[in-house]
Order: sequence, then C-alpha cells, then structure tokens
Amino acid sequence: MATEATKTRPARGPLNGVDTPTLFGTLDAVKGQPGLAKFQFRARNRWRSGTLSETTIDTFTGAGGEHPHKTTFKMQADHPAVLVGEDRAPLPVEYLLHALATCITGGIANIAAARGVKLTEVESKIEGDIDLLGILGLSKDVRNGYQGIRASFSIKGDAPPEKLQEIVEQSRSRSAVFDVLTNGVPVSLSVNAG
Amino acid sequence: MATEATKTRPARGPLNGVDTPTLFGTLDAVKGQPGLAKFQFRARNRWRSGTLSETTIDTFTGAGGEHPHKTTFKMQADHPAVLVGEDRAPLPVEYLLHALATCITGGIANIAAARGVKLTEVESKIEGDIDLLGILGLSKDVRNGYQGIRASFSIKGDAPPEKLQEIVEQSRSRSAVFDVLTNGVPVSLSVNAG
Repeated sequence: MATEATKTRPARGPLNGVDTPTLFGTLDAVKGQPGLAKFQFRARNRWRSGTLSETTIDTFTGAGGEHPHKTTFKMQADHPAVLVGEDRAPLPVEYLLHALATCITGGIANIAAARGVKLTEVESKIEGDIDLLGILGLSKDVRNGYQGIRASFSIKGDAPPEKLQEIVEQSRSRSAVFDVLTNGVPVSLSVNAG
Repeated sequence: MATEATKTRPARGPLNGVDTPTLFGTLDAVKGQPGLAKFQFRARNRWRSGTLSETTIDTFTGAGGEHPHKTTFKMQADHPAVLVGEDRAPLPVEYLLHALATCITGGIANIAAARGVKLTEVESKIEGDIDLLGILGLSKDVRNGYQGIRASFSIKGDAPPEKLQEIVEQSRSRSAVFDVLTNGVPVSLSVNAG
C-alpha cells in the first residue's frame, strides 16, 4: 500500500490495471481535506479448535466514512503438525510475510502507473528466520519473533533497470507494512474473562 | 504461536483440540537438541493486476529439516475502491491484524491445554489506526504504518476469570507476531530489475 504525489503530472490513462486518473484525483481530494486520510482497519477473530482460528474482515473507516468491503473476507490460521497443529491454514507468522510482499507489490503497481511505466512482471520471495526457543520458553535470550526477514523482488517492464529499481525503492519507502515491521507499533491489549 | 515450558507437569490428555502429550514431547525434544527450534518460513508472491497480487506458501524449514505444508496455501491482497483498487481481497495491513489475532489465539489454546483449562470461547477484535498522509507523500511528519493497534480478547472456560486472564497474558508475552509488531524486525530488500 504505497503511492506518491508528484508535482508535475502528465495526463495519463489507466496503466498496469491501475486507474491512474482516479489515483491522482484521490491525491488532490486528500490535499484539499487532509482528514480524509484517516483510516481505521479492523478484524474479528474466533477460535475454532486447537491452534485453528478464523478471522472475519468486513468493514473499515476512512475517507470520511464507514465502508463495507465488497465481500466479507474470511481467513484462517493454524500451526503445522511439527508445531502441534493440524496444518489447516498458514501460520500467523507466514501471514506477516504475505502482508509485506503484497504491500510493496501493490505500491509498485501504483507508482509505476503514476510514472507511466508499463510492468510485465513483479515477483518476490520473502524469508523469515525464527528461533522457537523464545516462544517455547526455553531461552530468555531468544526473542519470540523473527530475527530477520529478507525480501527479494524481481521486476520487469518497459523502463531501464535503474528506473524499475527506483520504483521498488519508492514503494518500500512508502510501504505501511514495511514501516510497521521494521519500526514496530504500539499495541494495547484488553481482556474480558469469564 | 506461543506455548510454555512448565517444570512440573501433570499427565494430561488432549484438550481444546490440542494434542497436549505431543506438545510436551516437542518441548522435551527441543530441550535435548536446541537446534531443532530454528525455523525459516517463506512466501512467494506474484503481481496480478493493479493492486492485486497473490502469495503462495508451501514449504518451511524447521525441526532439523524441510517440510511441505499439507496443502499449498494461496492468498491474495488488494486495495478497496476508495484506495484505488478493486477490493478483490483484504488489504495488506488488514493481514497484520489477522496475524496478531490468530497468533495470540493459537497460543491461548495451547497454554490453556497445558494448564488443564477447557476453553469454550475465545473471540477477539483488533483495530488499527492509520493516517494515509504518510503513504500518499502528503506529510513527512506522518508515519506510513499504523499509529496504534488495539486488541480486545474475550475468553470463556472452566477456570476462574483471573486464571483465564493469565492465559491470555501468557500467550501475549510469548507471541511471535506481538513481538514483531511491537518491537520491529530488521528487513533487508534486494531487487533484480530488467
């Protein structure tokens, strides 16, 4: 989820499946009324059995109002057998890698369209290393989460390699998920028990 | 994704859909051979069109070897219309909320089983606030990612409220996703262009 404001904009039609005129229209609208940029996203989750639970995502707030998604999205997470689950869905930590890949990739498409670059391919591989001695309570010196994440992007389109590279870099520098993963975010938790 | 080591363990059968004997067996195996706790998770992503891309998750490394998931998991992310997408899938930033909810919930089930507590309900709501002035390049003072995330859990089971509350707190304190989101993680990115 990343895009950019440019001061001088050639008139461009839709490109890469991105509705570029609407993209620029949105930027102009938000410039005139910055409160439109305030969003709230939300998810509801329900435990099923063992390590399996299911999340429902159906509405969000932003651009001055409440919005339903076109569809009610449902997704699950589980642990694999080697981590005492039944492998009915990806692991929670795998969804972090998915979030990172898709955030930077969506931004690449938007930024390329805004710059008039037609893309033919964007692929990525994301890897995360984690030592479960932390989670398992077997070491106090090992963190619970990933110790490091590596992302590698491959991009092709009708622009020189340096320009394609710049588009990826611009997307990274404006990515919400990259920011959250690298810089962290305050998370508060409340419990209603009984 | 969280569990715990306990020094004194009553013999317990499976509970909450968690295979507790296997859980304790895993802990003993890892205690004897800490290298088994090193895992690597991975995701491959391919851009489709506009802000839509698709991730494939099929293998991971850990417990001393390479493992296929039971199924090849595929998942997509997109932007909604108000953010210049077609709303064909959840947003990347919504997947972060899903990852947080499912990580803490899976841990709750494991920890409750280990403590002999039968759960009847675990539900959660997660909200994240984000100001898109950062992403849109309209303010340098606004971060790209969430400014804050609030999680509220509701838990019911055959234990007093304080004990149920402790289980949630223990899961939070051992959650891989909670750690990554609150503390951040180094992310490196490489690009192959052209």
